[in-house]
Amino acid sequence: MNLRLVLSLIGSVSVVEGALMAIPLAVSLIYYGEDWKAFVFAIALCVIVGFALKSIRPRNERLRAREGFAVVALSWILVSALGALPFFFSGAIPNYVDCFFETVSGFTTTGATILSDVEALPRGLLFWRSLTHWAGGMGVLVLSLALFPKMGARSIHIMRAESPGPSTDKLVPRVKNTAKILYQIYVALSVTMVICLLLCGLDLFDSLVHTFGAAGTGGFSSYNLSVAHFANPAAEIVIGVFMALFGINFSLYFFLLHRNFRAVAKSGELRLYLGLLLGSSLLIALNAQGLFSNFGEALRHSFFQVSSIMTTTGYSSHNFDLWPQFARILLVVLMLIGSCAGSTGGGVKVVRLEILLKSLWRDIRQSVHPQQVDVVKLDGRPIEEKTVSSVQGFFFAYITVLVGATLIVALDNYSFETSLTAVVATLSNIGPGLDLVGAVGNYGMFSPLSKIVLSFVMLIGRLEVFPILMLFVPSAWKK
Amino acid sequence: MNLRLVLSLIGSVSVVEGALMAIPLAVSLIYYGEDWKAFVFAIALCVIVGFALKSIRPRNERLRAREGFAVVALSWILVSALGALPFFFSGAIPNYVDCFFETVSGFTTTGATILSDVEALPRGLLFWRSLTHWAGGMGVLVLSLALFPKMGARSIHIMRAESPGPSTDKLVPRVKNTAKILYQIYVALSVTMVICLLLCGLDLFDSLVHTFGAAGTGGFSSYNLSVAHFANPAAEIVIGVFMALFGINFSLYFFLLHRNFRAVAKSGELRLYLGLLLGSSLLIALNAQGLFSNFGEALRHSFFQVSSIMTTTGYSSHNFDLWPQFARILLVVLMLIGSCAGSTGGGVKVVRLEILLKSLWRDIRQSVHPQQVDVVKLDGRPIEEKTVSSVQGFFFAYITVLVGATLIVALDNYSFETSLTAVVATLSNIGPGLDLVGAVGNYGMFSPLSKIVLSFVMLIGRLEVFPILMLFVPSAWKK
Repeated sequence: MNLRLVLSLIGSVSVVEGALMAIPLAVSLIYYGEDWKAFVFAIALCVIVGFALKSIRPRNERLRAREGFAVVALSWILVSALGALPFFFSGAIPNYVDCFFETVSGFTTTGATILSDVEALPRGLLFWRSLTHWAGGMGVLVLSLALFPKMGARSIHIMRAESPGPSTDKLVPRVKNTAKILYQIYVALSVTMVICLLLCGLDLFDSLVHTFGAAGTGGFSSYNLSVAHFANPAAEIVIGVFMALFGINFSLYFFLLHRNFRAVAKSGELRLYLGLLLGSSLLIALNAQGLFSNFGEALRHSFFQVSSIMTTTGYSSHNFDLWPQFARILLVVLMLIGSCAGSTGGGVKVVRLEILLKSLWRDIRQSVHPQQVDVVKLDGRPIEEKTVSSVQGFFFAYITVLVGATLIVALDNYSFETSLTAVVATLSNIGPGLDLVGAVGNYGMFSPLSKIVLSFVMLIGRLEVFPILMLFVPSAWKK
Repeated sequence: MNLRLVLSLIGSVSVVEGALMAIPLAVSLIYYGEDWKAFVFAIALCVIVGFALKSIRPRNERLRAREGFAVVALSWILVSALGALPFFFSGAIPNYVDCFFETVSGFTTTGATILSDVEALPRGLLFWRSLTHWAGGMGVLVLSLALFPKMGARSIHIMRAESPGPSTDKLVPRVKNTAKILYQIYVALSVTMVICLLLCGLDLFDSLVHTFGAAGTGGFSSYNLSVAHFANPAAEIVIGVFMALFGINFSLYFFLLHRNFRAVAKSGELRLYLGLLLGSSLLIALNAQGLFSNFGEALRHSFFQVSSIMTTTGYSSHNFDLWPQFARILLVVLMLIGSCAGSTGGGVKVVRLEILLKSLWRDIRQSVHPQQVDVVKLDGRPIEEKTVSSVQGFFFAYITVLVGATLIVALDNYSFETSLTAVVATLSNIGPGLDLVGAVGNYGMFSPLSKIVLSFVMLIGRLEVFPILMLFVPSAWKK
């Protein structure tokens, strides 16, 4: 491991984070908040740590896959550790483990909170909390890549390790330009959403906070009741639709901009995503309609919730923990599936599900016709067996982390549903699960051990398992 | 599909089943039970159906993989449909769907019951119910193979489709002889167990019933409280140990008999199985010790329960539904893992877990060292990537069936735990799950739809997914 190179690269991320904190500092000053001092101290620390790391001179500039993974894993841990400081310095969250949990939850776009009364937070901290969603959604390193040209061609290793999905294509030859294009699309969609929310009657602060939450598919709200607080059907529809848009592979927007409609129409992942989204909305509306005054209302809440859960955002317009069991269990299944690869969402990803289902159907056919040669196709093109196998391996790894973490969390002896869905909701970066961690619950009651485990589960989910697990391979650390 | 050949082969199984029913008929007569007439009618039907099917003359004798699968799938469905008749004719279980569920549960060695008062059944039916475990444990077709020499060399297709585990080795060159050897080991172990239970003070009827349940890793008891009824620690230890023995790959007993100790010592599956069994017993004893008067008692109940669940038997010596969450969740995880391949138990199987874990560890190493060539080894020998991939595919298929069936069962709107663990406990052929289907619960309250779905889930689990799913591939049925 070329640790000196890794550390020097991480420095940039720390500086970028310090710069990012200037925004909530400004918000704090505008609202005359008492939290401004916490931001000043935190910014100072980010900058000092950042420049200290950047001053490390690596003996050589060789960046291999393992250094790429290590940069990503350690950056995310560092960014969370530093991002927790404003909460801690301000005294708003007295326990540092809680601050770390809340910040990991922010950057990984999980949206799980340890706070029972979100509304008690000062505006600056609320803004910072939501901004971490927005920054984490597209990737803190992709952000740094877009800003710092230093890493050059080697940075594809980093982008691969940070980007969700089984494969990362460069849209244009230079990685740095790909990162820029993605951010431009992201900003454009976000600005559009803010305008729509303003038109629905939300104030600027709420519009920004809920745009950050939806764009990053995070789910932090500035209200204890989440989106249900507004009791504003128009805003619910806007947020529901935009969440669904942010759950789509951003490459497709790039193709749309270049009028490459065939590439969009050909996407099997998009079809499966929309099919699951609309099909599940309909089934849940039918299942839960008894709770609403008419089917239209049931469908609106059902679509909002399915969009929120499947994109792994986690907003709620209704307490879905009280819905019938079919609806609740289907939502948990959608949590595991998640959104499209190359979006800001989490979960196993729809394209992986597509590959897994197609290879299952292939295996069934093959057991009937063992002589036939049968390949799995994606968007009309055959894919390598190696890819199928790596997706199957990823699925097992995901379930293994899920089971292992659930067993540790279960030591706190909260209900089966609470323990299991707390891990599902953090691993897939959703936020709320069922029962005690349901739509109106929070993660505050867990032991420090569980909070630390769940923090790492969020990171494992966001970085798609391997970059974090790699840290535990002794041979990765050899010189 | 050579349907005429398939049907003619199934005929033998039906005749064997009729012969098997003579045993509970005798039991019924000994106890002056009123159920003897039901057995006479059922036997007559089995024999008539059997000879009618056997009279079908196939146009050719070609038995390919698909016919092998079809013979297995259809035999199991037929055997269950006919085996349900004594319950139905006697009026002991008035609803035929319930009779079918109970019989599928018997033959697949699940042990899930729809009866709330088992003790009300007449002795003949109780005996039949448990005998289905014993016959189903080793495979109803393997039994027929051992008795009917007709199928010859082609029968390996059938044995492969019925036997649990990713690969079936012939122990000796002829399949028929392999089947005989396996049955001899099975009988010898069963007789030993009966003697041990008699020595513990159980009467002959109870000893036989509980031996059938343990040998087939089924779990039907003649008492509502299961093994806890006896309040006999010695019997609990005997049953606990024998369940564990029946969960081991029977090939290893064959090697032991031939003094091939190296083959036994080399078995990675055996080591992992024993490690999980003893490790989980210890962890659960530590977690649940507060419920018992001392640690020894906790360990006894914990070992019994882990052995019962992991071998997928389902007996209980204590109401484990009341144990702490860690213990409950670990038991559900063990349900999914199950026993060794080539045993009478169900689940994903320990050897598949071994392959999955080893390939996960390989993938992690490979992400650090992409240039290194790294293969997965089993018992010291490298295995093909195709095998790894097929095991990964099996795991996804298993989880897919689990999720799909849970969603259907959830329409009954029983709790999350009930819906989920009912499917886990039937798919892995255990019997009891948690909550309403827990150690003191039963499956009687489910809707007919759920009971039919769960019956097929039991068959899917017992036959390891593909033979049943294959029935839904249209091209399999073409001439």
